[in-house]
This record gives sequence, structure tokens and C-alpha cells, in this order.
Amino acid sequence: MNTDGPLEMLIRQLAALPGLGPRSARRAALYLLTRRKTQMQPLAQAIQQAAELVRECTACNNLDTADPCRICSDPRRDAGQICVVAQVSDLWAIERTGAFKGRYHVLGGLLSALDGMGPEQLRIPTLLVRVKEPAVREVILALSATVDGQSTAHYIADHLGPGSNAKITRLAHGVPVGGELDYLDDGTIITALRARNAA
Amino acid sequence: MNTDGPLEMLIRQLAALPGLGPRSARRAALYLLTRRKTQMQPLAQAIQQAAELVRECTACNNLDTADPCRICSDPRRDAGQICVVAQVSDLWAIERTGAFKGRYHVLGGLLSALDGMGPEQLRIPTLLVRVKEPAVREVILALSATVDGQSTAHYIADHLGPGSNAKITRLAHGVPVGGELDYLDDGTIITALRARNAA
Repeated sequence: MNTDGPLEMLIRQLAALPGLGPRSARRAALYLLTRRKTQMQPLAQAIQQAAELVRECTACNNLDTADPCRICSDPRRDAGQICVVAQVSDLWAIERTGAFKGRYHVLGGLLSALDGMGPEQLRIPTLLVRVKEPAVREVILALSATVDGQSTAHYIADHLGPGSNAKITRLAHGVPVGGELDYLDDGTIITALRARNAA
Repeated sequence: MNTDGPLEMLIRQLAALPGLGPRSARRAALYLLTRRKTQMQPLAQAIQQAAELVRECTACNNLDTADPCRICSDPRRDAGQICVVAQVSDLWAIERTGAFKGRYHVLGGLLSALDGMGPEQLRIPTLLVRVKEPAVREVILALSATVDGQSTAHYIADHLGPGSNAKITRLAHGVPVGGELDYLDDGTIITALRARNAA
């Protein structure tokens, strides 16, 4: 193999995808080259089409072909509830549950001094503007239970306070459904004990 | 998410790649959509280019932009040795070692009654023709030490015999270099014992 032919270029580009290393990228390239009509052309088309048609919603930063996105423009969804998530993948995870009928705000990441992510790198300023609208009754901070997630939640809660009447809530911490106590970390058990409910 | 937009199509196509499931395909799609210039367009181009330019060598079935491939057309490589491999990835693995200076024959798979792979589905007939050339001195069967690999090797050895003067060899079985005896299966240890060499 020389190192700059089209085959090597394809392998290098595939290896850059998260979840694929050099070895699986070679396998994927061979997989595609032996299925040119059924897999390779459709994949190239899907990438081109998505690059052309998928855009960010100017209201909530969700990815969709429409702007505003289908969630923001759906009149059946409650504009009074804004669920704040770090990434579009978190939005998808909540949508898959079907349990939330409000709207979203995708931050595009979490505050992180190490990664140089400040409030201006995230979509926190636009969130603060959105929340000032009188229709907004509740802001649900659906951020990961990690250090970065919780410090982002703190920062937002601190800055939402003045000029907004919206209630600020967070996802509950506790034992995951189906989780065995024996395998849970101490922090989760302590939190679940403190937040115990009447049976 | 609706199920037939360009975003969902991209995720579905990515999920079809070996090594990517639905979850990692969603991550890869988001990764691409947030890096359109640096990753998404280059990947689409790499796929298109590879689909257009990469072809099978008519002699050995290797994948290359040239036909015959650079290995078959390299005068420094010994045309008297043919190394038979199941897949192009096996050829790459042997090439990475730099230890083989002959030519290859890529079968395109292994004989497998379960998967409906017979000699005609593989490139065994063209191998039998190639080996009849008087220049061919040795056929190295570099096939996996699995049931399918070994039965393919047996089949080829049986059918090469008449009409060819080439010596038929196989990769040695034994303890992998760096392998600990304690973790090896019984079959490998037995084979290594039987094939022991003078120290």
C-alpha cells in the first residue's frame, strides 16, 4: 500500500470517525468497496445530502432540515417548558422516551476550563434571552451528572435568576431503573437515600 | 426525529458499516455535521474517489488504482511465489510485515457450506490456472487457522496437485510471538509441541 492513493485516503477519513480506529476503518473500506452499488454510493449520497440539507435551528440549535426545527415549530409542543441539553444526541435520547412535550435548547457542549469552553462558546447567551420571554414557565436543566455538567447547570441557574420568572429544575438523581444497588457507586446511593420518597 | 429525513438516512448508512452500531452511527453523524468543511466533505470525496478509481486486479484480485496492481506489475517481486489469502485485508497484513516478496492471490472469502461459498464463488478456478504457469515454484496457503480456512486449504491443495509442479506450503502453526503459554488454547500448544524445533 502506498500512503496517498484514494484507498488510503478513504481509510484515513473513515478512521477519523468516532468509534472507528485504523483497523476497523480498513474493514469498513473493504466492506464498502465490495458493495459499491448497495452501500458505497448510498453512503456518499447520504453524506452529501445531509451536508446540504441539515442545518441548525436558530431558536434551539437542534439539527433538522427545517429552520425553525420541527420541534420548535410544532404548535402542540409547550413553549413554556425549555429543556436545556448539552448535545443534539441528548435531545434525541429524551425524544426517544416520548416523555417530554416541551421545547429544547442545545448548548453545544458544557462549560470546561480545560477545554477552553466558556459561556460564549456555548449557546448560553441565547438561552438567557429566550428565558426572558414571559411565556417561559420552566427551564429543565437536563445535563450530565458530571463535574462539567453540574458546573454548567450551576452557572445557568445563577444567571437565569434575575429578569426571569421561570422555575429552574433539574433531572432527579437516584438509582437507575433496573440498576442493582450492589453495583452502584457510593455517591448515587447517598443521593438516592437523601432524596427518598414515601413508598 | 422522523425516520426518513437526510439525517436519519445518514445515520442508517453509517450504522451499516462494520464496527458501527446505531449508537455510534448517531455519534459519527453528529461528529460529521459539526465538522462539515474539515471532515464531512473530505469523507464524501474520499468515498466517491475510491468508488471511481479503485478496482480489482485481474491477476490477483487485490484492490488498487492500477490493473494489474502495483504488486503484480512490480518486476522486483518474485512471480514464482504465490501467497493465497482469503481477503485483501490479509494481503495488507502480510504486506505490513515486509517479509514477503512474492505475489498474491486473493480468494475473496473461504469455502463455507453454511454461507453458500463454493469454489466458483471464490477465485479458486483462476488460481488453478495461474499455478499451472511453469514459472510458479511455490504456492503458500496463508489462510486462517479456522475450520473454514483449513478446509479451503485442503481443497486447494487437493486440486493444485495434478498439472502443476509447484510446491504447496502453509503458514506454520505455533505459539504466537509474545504469547503466554498459560493463556493459549490446548490445540495451539499441542500443535506447537508436535512441530517443535531444535533449540
